[in-house]
Amino acid sequence: MTPYKTKTRLFVDAGLTAGGGLDVSEAQAHYLGHVMRLGTGDGVVLFNGRDGEWSAVIDSLAKKRGALTVEKLLRPQSAEPGPWLAFAPIKKTSTDFIIEKATELGVSRLCPVFTKNTNTTRINLDRFRAHAIEAVEQSQRLTVPEFMEPQTLDQFIAGWPPGRILLHLDESGGGRPIAEVLARLRDQGGGDEPSCGFLSGPEGGFDASELDALGKLDFVTGVDLGPRVLRADTAALSALACWQALLGSGH
Amino acid sequence: MTPYKTKTRLFVDAGLTAGGGLDVSEAQAHYLGHVMRLGTGDGVVLFNGRDGEWSAVIDSLAKKRGALTVEKLLRPQSAEPGPWLAFAPIKKTSTDFIIEKATELGVSRLCPVFTKNTNTTRINLDRFRAHAIEAVEQSQRLTVPEFMEPQTLDQFIAGWPPGRILLHLDESGGGRPIAEVLARLRDQGGGDEPSCGFLSGPEGGFDASELDALGKLDFVTGVDLGPRVLRADTAALSALACWQALLGSGH
Repeated sequence: MTPYKTKTRLFVDAGLTAGGGLDVSEAQAHYLGHVMRLGTGDGVVLFNGRDGEWSAVIDSLAKKRGALTVEKLLRPQSAEPGPWLAFAPIKKTSTDFIIEKATELGVSRLCPVFTKNTNTTRINLDRFRAHAIEAVEQSQRLTVPEFMEPQTLDQFIAGWPPGRILLHLDESGGGRPIAEVLARLRDQGGGDEPSCGFLSGPEGGFDASELDALGKLDFVTGVDLGPRVLRADTAALSALACWQALLGSGH
Repeated sequence: MTPYKTKTRLFVDAGLTAGGGLDVSEAQAHYLGHVMRLGTGDGVVLFNGRDGEWSAVIDSLAKKRGALTVEKLLRPQSAEPGPWLAFAPIKKTSTDFIIEKATELGVSRLCPVFTKNTNTTRINLDRFRAHAIEAVEQSQRLTVPEFMEPQTLDQFIAGWPPGRILLHLDESGGGRPIAEVLARLRDQGGGDEPSCGFLSGPEGGFDASELDALGKLDFVTGVDLGPRVLRADTAALSALACWQALLGSGH
């Protein structure tokens, strides 16, 4: 669990089996050789989200390419059933931050949602996914969170699956304390991680009509994160940290 | 509590009394005029960490200077007794992030601590304080966290006040679940916010000898933040978010 002792971890697309060979991408070859200073004969750890985690050895490494041989299974694949996070995209670095930290904190799905006060209109899911993969590699996860296509808040609400609870990070002061809400979910779930999601607003907050619409939905519970005004990214992170502490696996 | 409806808040050094006048700094004049697009006759909110929160009006505003008149008290000064955060400085943007988010999440004191695996040696407390003030302004706090002079881990431990609990964010797997530890503190405190602090390590984690020394101190409790390897800044933030949810005021 100590990152500095952990071998370099790489997420790959290829299937992983003992003795199998695979080529790394140009970016990965650069990362292995120039960032991590590895070379032929050095070991790395591979995973692809499907076949578990494997040790591998570098057979050859050049500036723009490299070849690895898969050795043995280190951890079998397992499900990582974390919460979902729906978030209004905010300015670039803050959105990157939400994706990185949410991945570290165990989200299983990320949903960009456009609200009335959302200023950003361009979403680059490939960039989001690259950020998430980096966080998956360093946090020792075995799966990459799934990204939904960006939706409007109306579309998002209409597509929300029955039976899943949506916790709205409510800055208006009308929410219930998050520890109380999560403890109740935990007690209702009998120890299982219940299916839930969080909805985090834009920098300008939700519009009054949006708050009104959310308040009328029976699967939505407004949660309160305390007396201070939190930036949108801080609110999303805080909620996920509380989820991990009160409902997450690993304790 | 909705930030987009909140008037521009400024932290000032001067004393605040009804009818008093004050001059703003060059940076604040720029902020008021060019960032917030305010001008003569517009209202702002002022606080100084001592005299509460006041409304004020802009009397004059030029490129590099401005004058305000203090009008009336909006909120009396109150104590903001949050936890302390001792943290090993990490790379610049991540340290800035810790300071910003810790301030939003209510810390009352920030202590930079040099550990064996800390790579950074230069600390600019003025820069840290400027980041904290910005977060105080936007989060509606009335006080700026206090910054301690940087210390080594040994100095920090030797100077820790008797009776205050130090929760060490333990990545080694030996800590107790944070929700359990905080709930016990809450129950022991009988509803008051107990005096506690968090200690967050560097990117490389604490050295084995440091972990050993921390483990022997009776005021230190190791806390576990879950099964994934968290970056140092994520760990600090997560712990503070859990503190707010389980022990913080405002619920």
